[in-house]
Amino acid sequence: MSGKAKPCVVLLSGGLDSSVAGAVARAKGRELNALSFRYGQRHSRELGMARSQARALGCASHRVLSLPLGSIAAGSLLLGQGARAGAGRGVPATYVSFRNGIFLSLAFAWAETLGADEVWGGWCRTDHQGYPDCRLPFFRAFEKAARLGTAAGSRGARLKVVAPLAGLSKAETVALGLSLGVDLAKTHTCYAGSSRPCGKCDACRLRAQGFRLAGKQDPLTAR
Amino acid sequence: MSGKAKPCVVLLSGGLDSSVAGAVARAKGRELNALSFRYGQRHSRELGMARSQARALGCASHRVLSLPLGSIAAGSLLLGQGARAGAGRGVPATYVSFRNGIFLSLAFAWAETLGADEVWGGWCRTDHQGYPDCRLPFFRAFEKAARLGTAAGSRGARLKVVAPLAGLSKAETVALGLSLGVDLAKTHTCYAGSSRPCGKCDACRLRAQGFRLAGKQDPLTAR
Repeated sequence: MSGKAKPCVVLLSGGLDSSVAGAVARAKGRELNALSFRYGQRHSRELGMARSQARALGCASHRVLSLPLGSIAAGSLLLGQGARAGAGRGVPATYVSFRNGIFLSLAFAWAETLGADEVWGGWCRTDHQGYPDCRLPFFRAFEKAARLGTAAGSRGARLKVVAPLAGLSKAETVALGLSLGVDLAKTHTCYAGSSRPCGKCDACRLRAQGFRLAGKQDPLTAR
Repeated sequence: MSGKAKPCVVLLSGGLDSSVAGAVARAKGRELNALSFRYGQRHSRELGMARSQARALGCASHRVLSLPLGSIAAGSLLLGQGARAGAGRGVPATYVSFRNGIFLSLAFAWAETLGADEVWGGWCRTDHQGYPDCRLPFFRAFEKAARLGTAAGSRGARLKVVAPLAGLSKAETVALGLSLGVDLAKTHTCYAGSSRPCGKCDACRLRAQGFRLAGKQDPLTAR
């Protein structure tokens, strides 16, 4: 391949979806720069998986940023807190206030530093249904804010949020990941954080259903 | 006064402008919740001033968040780095990539937790001229993203960025601050970080000009 690969930032959590999104970006010939966050999740197993995936994807760089979200975005199950702020009435108890707004703002800051126009992430159809900050109208609005609010954007860079899984079911994501050679044993999905999925949380149930409908065996639950 | 004051988040840097913006919010009867950031600025004198102002303004709460911006938004004079990313061609060397996008995303996350609709800040006419993320079109676009991307917004909360100094010169800001009783001796402006303004950096020059045109003595330079 000749010419320089176009750089992008990939939000890489270490979960199944973001790993597959990263593999799509790589398949499209992008130079990958992975961005992960330590934000008070109840467990750090995901971050180890993010590191594995960043290596496997051949990322040009990988940053893990610590964010003190617990002190401002209280009340999510994901932050190890029982109560909620914002959740309810169709919004899952794992909602963390404006999390993707925060992640995208940091990603576009880094993108500008790298000279990248695109931020990729693994937002999927199921996320879209529950989380307001995983929906395409939000991404379009955020792109506009980023174009207006960065030096690069104000000079004409077409900053973009790329969500290659937005239209896919979990089964389609599993199949796509396998077709792209993603090592799904090196992804973490369970909210509980043990190496073997608990099988009970929403994330585990969605993942199990995805593998089942794709007609594949999840390597994490293989005996 | 009867009834509960409407809560808001105020971005409080410890500089002159944000202190005056906070005083305007207080004068409008808001409950103030101050948010400050430690993000690798070359000095921390500003944060001490932010604490003083938060006390003086009677803020209901004050959070100081540490953000590792140096690892992603390299190249600003403000981060103590010589080179630049994004600056040049009309953008000051003190530009930190998408800084206000990052600050606003965290502020709206906290606002949702607090049940607040407004984020106030001290962006002024001079900022507006240089920094893309201090301009009203950016704020309008960001509000839209926040309304779409938060649970509160998606239920109809009219989230707003409030920039009471947007149309004011520095002299008008100085006069407004004095009329509202802001202790301008407890603000910090100089990029260099010493207690007495260096008098040479852009921030010092703008401040000195503001006091001069307002016909007032800057308490920081009084003998």
